Amino acid sequence: MYSFNELQGIVQKEIDGLELSIPPEGLFEPMKYILGIGGKRLRPILVLLSTNLFKEDLTKACLPAIGMEVFHNFTLLHDDVMDNAPIRRSKKTVHEKWNSNVAILSGDAMSIKAYQYIVSCEDKYLRDVLTVFNQTALEVCEGQQFDMDFEDRDDVKEEEYLNMIRLKTAVLLGGSLKMGAIMGDASPKDADLLYHFGTNLGMAFQLQDDLLDVFGDEAVFGKKIGGDILSNKKTFLLIKALENAKGKDREELVIWLGAKEFDPEEKIEVVRGIYKKLKVREQSQIKIDEYFAYCLEYLDKVEVEAEKKKELYALVSGLVNRSV
Amino acid sequence: MYSFNELQGIVQKEIDGLELSIPPEGLFEPMKYILGIGGKRLRPILVLLSTNLFKEDLTKACLPAIGMEVFHNFTLLHDDVMDNAPIRRSKKTVHEKWNSNVAILSGDAMSIKAYQYIVSCEDKYLRDVLTVFNQTALEVCEGQQFDMDFEDRDDVKEEEYLNMIRLKTAVLLGGSLKMGAIMGDASPKDADLLYHFGTNLGMAFQLQDDLLDVFGDEAVFGKKIGGDILSNKKTFLLIKALENAKGKDREELVIWLGAKEFDPEEKIEVVRGIYKKLKVREQSQIKIDEYFAYCLEYLDKVEVEAEKKKELYALVSGLVNRSV
Repeated sequence: MYSFNELQGIVQKEIDGLELSIPPEGLFEPMKYILGIGGKRLRPILVLLSTNLFKEDLTKACLPAIGMEVFHNFTLLHDDVMDNAPIRRSKKTVHEKWNSNVAILSGDAMSIKAYQYIVSCEDKYLRDVLTVFNQTALEVCEGQQFDMDFEDRDDVKEEEYLNMIRLKTAVLLGGSLKMGAIMGDASPKDADLLYHFGTNLGMAFQLQDDLLDVFGDEAVFGKKIGGDILSNKKTFLLIKALENAKGKDREELVIWLGAKEFDPEEKIEVVRGIYKKLKVREQSQIKIDEYFAYCLEYLDKVEVEAEKKKELYALVSGLVNRSV
Repeated sequence: MYSFNELQGIVQKEIDGLELSIPPEGLFEPMKYILGIGGKRLRPILVLLSTNLFKEDLTKACLPAIGMEVFHNFTLLHDDVMDNAPIRRSKKTVHEKWNSNVAILSGDAMSIKAYQYIVSCEDKYLRDVLTVFNQTALEVCEGQQFDMDFEDRDDVKEEEYLNMIRLKTAVLLGGSLKMGAIMGDASPKDADLLYHFGTNLGMAFQLQDDLLDVFGDEAVFGKKIGGDILSNKKTFLLIKALENAKGKDREELVIWLGAKEFDPEEKIEVVRGIYKKLKVREQSQIKIDEYFAYCLEYLDKVEVEAEKKKELYALVSGLVNRSV
C-alpha cells in the first residue's frame, strides 16, 4: 500500500522523466513549462490510489495515470487562453509567456500526448480505459462550454450550475478513479462506486473552492479573495443569493452586478455582506457536507478491506477540513 | 469493390448521420458547421479504399474512417484561428461566425470526438489503429508548428520545408491508408507500403498546391492566385528561388519580400516573373513527378491483384493531371 505522499513522489518523478525536450521546441517547451509549474497531481494520484486498492504493483498504471495529469493541464492551458488569464500558480500563463497561437497548438499536441500515455495501459484494459477517458474528456469540454455560456446569462439555475461543475471538474476525478479501478481488475460494480465517490468528492471540492474564494482567509488560501465576486461569476453562492434576495437586498445586489466602475474592496465587502445576511454561506456548507456524505457512502460500499481504503478516507477528511 | 464516388457517398451519409444536435449548442454546432461546408472527404475515402483492397465488407470501418475526417477538420478549425483566416471554402470560418473561444473549445471537443469514432473499430485492431493515429496526429501538430516557425525565418532549407509538409499534410494521408489496411487485415508489409504510398502522394499533392497557387488558372483553381506570394509564404518555390537567385534578381526578390506597401497584382506579377526566370516552376514539377513516381512504386508492390488497386491508380492519375 502506497501513501498519498509516496504516490505524489512517484508521479512527480514520472513527470520529470517525460521526454519532452524534442523539436519543434515551440510545441513541447510549453508542455514542459505548464507541467513544471506544479499542482497537487491529484488526478494521477487518484488513479494510482484506486489501482492500489486492488493490486500492489502499480508499475504499469503509472504512465496512464500521468495521461490524466497531462490532459488536465491541457485543459488549464486552453482555459487560460479563453479566460485571458495572465497568471497561473504565480507563474505567467503559456499564452502570456509565448503567445496564444503557441498556447492553442501546444495544447492540442498535449491532448494527443495525454492519449499516448493513457493508451500505454495493458491491452486487456485498453477498451474500457478509453471508453471512460473519451467520455470524461468530452464532458470536461461540455462543462467549460456551459461555464462560458453562463457568463452571459443571469438566470442560471442551481441545478444547471451543479451540472456544469459536475462536467467541468467532478467527472475527471471520478474518471481517474474508475480508470485506476479498471487497471486494478476491480469488479465493474466497484469501479462504478469509485467513479461516484470521485464525482461527489469533486462536487464538494468545487463548491468549497467557491466558498473559500469569498470567505477564505487570504493568507491561508494563498490567492486573492473575492475574485469570483469581482467578475460576477455565477457560483453557487451568487445563484442562491439571486434566488433568495428580496426588496432592498435584491436591488443592491443587482446594482453591484451591473456596476461598471467601483472600488473592488467595497464591492467584495458589500456582496459578502449580502451573502451573509441571506445565509448563502450556510446553504453552501450544507450542500458541501451533503456531497462529502455521498462520497463517503460510495467509498464505504467498495468491497475491499477498510484498511486499504484508509488513504482515500484520509484524503476526504483532509478536504473536509481544508481552508486552502 | 467500391468506386471513389460510391465511397464519397457513403462517407457523406455517415457524416450527415452523426449525432451532433446536442447541448451545449456552442460546442457541437460549430462541429456540424465545419463538417457541413464540405471538402472532398479524401482521408476517410483513403481509409475505406485501403480496407477495400483486402475485404469486401466496409461496414465496421466506416465510423473510424469518419474519425479521420473529423480530426482533419479539427486541425483546419484551429489552423484558421492561428492564421486568423476569415474564409474557408467560401464560408465564414468558425471563429469569424462565432468567436475564437468557441473555435478553440469546439475544436478541442472535435478532436475527442475524432478519437471516439476511431476507437469504434473492432477490438482486434484497436491497439494498432491507435498507434498509427496517435503518431500521425502528433506529427500533424509538429508540422503546423514548423510551418509557423518558418514565418519568422528567411533561411528555411528545402529539406526542412519538405519535412514540414510531410508532417503537416502527407502523414495524415499515409496514416489513413495504413489504418484502413489494418482494418482490412493486411500484412504489416502491405500496411507500410500503403502508408508510404500515401505520404508520397501527399507530398506531391502539397507541392502541386503550392505550384497552382502561383501558376494556376484562377477560374479553374477556384481560389485567388498568388496568396502565397503576397504573404511571403516559405513554399518550395520561394525557397528554391532564394537558393538560386543571384545579383539583380536576388536584390529584387529581397526588396519585394520586405515591402510593406505595394500593389498586390504587381508583386504577384514580378515575383512570378522571377520564378519563371529562375526556372523554379520546372524544378518544382520535377519534384512533384518524383513523388508521384515514388507513390506508384509503393502501390505497385502492394500484394493484391492490380484490378483491386485500380481506384487508387485512378486517384493518382487524376491528381497528376489536376489543375484545381
